[in-house]
Amino acid sequence: MRPKIYLFGDSITESSFTYGGWGASLAHHFSRTVDVVLRGYSGYNTRWAVKVMERVLPAANAVAVFFGANDACLPDRCGAFQHVPLHEYKHNLHSINRWPNTLVLLITPPPIDEEARLKYVFTILASLIHPYVENPTGLPERTNEAAGAYAKACIEVAGECGLPVVDLWTKMQQLADWKTAYLSDGLHLNETGNRFVFEEVVMKLKTEGLSLENLPVDLPMISEIDPNDPLKAFEG
Amino acid sequence: MRPKIYLFGDSITESSFTYGGWGASLAHHFSRTVDVVLRGYSGYNTRWAVKVMERVLPAANAVAVFFGANDACLPDRCGAFQHVPLHEYKHNLHSINRWPNTLVLLITPPPIDEEARLKYVFTILASLIHPYVENPTGLPERTNEAAGAYAKACIEVAGECGLPVVDLWTKMQQLADWKTAYLSDGLHLNETGNRFVFEEVVMKLKTEGLSLENLPVDLPMISEIDPNDPLKAFEG
Repeated sequence: MRPKIYLFGDSITESSFTYGGWGASLAHHFSRTVDVVLRGYSGYNTRWAVKVMERVLPAANAVAVFFGANDACLPDRCGAFQHVPLHEYKHNLHSINRWPNTLVLLITPPPIDEEARLKYVFTILASLIHPYVENPTGLPERTNEAAGAYAKACIEVAGECGLPVVDLWTKMQQLADWKTAYLSDGLHLNETGNRFVFEEVVMKLKTEGLSLENLPVDLPMISEIDPNDPLKAFEG
Repeated sequence: MRPKIYLFGDSITESSFTYGGWGASLAHHFSRTVDVVLRGYSGYNTRWAVKVMERVLPAANAVAVFFGANDACLPDRCGAFQHVPLHEYKHNLHSINRWPNTLVLLITPPPIDEEARLKYVFTILASLIHPYVENPTGLPERTNEAAGAYAKACIEVAGECGLPVVDLWTKMQQLADWKTAYLSDGLHLNETGNRFVFEEVVMKLKTEGLSLENLPVDLPMISEIDPNDPLKAFEG
């Protein structure tokens, strides 16, 4: 049986098997070593994640936990029903870290491009997803400052629990043009953003001992099969 | 527990989670309904697949069986160690169809662009994979005619067992420029070829009742969650 990595998160996870998505890239990277299992739920926050985690996550070797973008929706704006207070977000992340023998990798929410959120979400998506959620304020449902507070809280939980963490919020903003370089609509990842997350996750898993160098390969590689006696590789 | 589809095949399967790969596209298509599990083994033929199938395939809801490209290597050329005679290929496919309650979908090998095989394989790949396999004949290791014979045999097995089958060999060649439209090196799929396989597999699974219309969605969609009482969706 191969080890399994569950990807447990919101829409950034649910959409991670699109062209060049970070989930698909992980599955390709580990194609002969690890099963990558998708458990992404668009729009979900940690409050809802805690309600469902026992149903959707069996004991796994590793879980990438990637929530916070929806928790960080502002409580007085149109995404309020997805908002989770900061202290509860931290408590929920503690609850999700519930398996003694599972490597839990936390991922912070990405930074937010507020102008792009206004431009994309309330002209295109809102009418499709929730026709009755209106945005009379003309303000974005998320701010970069709020996302940063949740990222900081996520890193604190990692420290408290001794868990590895990918600090997307900080790392992405180290690039001057992070808004267009990594994001497609001010929140979700474009191809380069997906590549960034993939590389960060691979690097972090490696520091935890989960890497191609350490994992057994499922069945002999073609280069290990003797052309003069191929079946020898499958004996025993 | 979500249903599982195993993708069991050779390098065309192992590489199916690259950019726009047919496996990744399937995982995205079924992101909230089905787990797509990768079991691709580069260079493998049905003889080796039969040796390992009990180890790598637990009882699954569905298995896409995509072998034949290596079986069809010609026995008197440089890929001879991968060759499996036609009658044994058929017998092996019968053996792989071993689960009474599993939907087995057969996929024929794709057509072969012999000129591209010569150009790509023996200048780039052979030295990397098997430095000691030489090609003094200057002839390709696979021919389109041979691939066609294995595709025909695959379709016969599907008929004998009452299994669905995707006839890639025939369907791809219905396009005049199939060699460049679908293939990257005369054998493996480019992005359009991957898209083609993805669409054919989705269509065939649908005729067998495995489609988004028929499958339960894992957890409530965000559009089904009441903004005024979100937790109601997670009761019971």
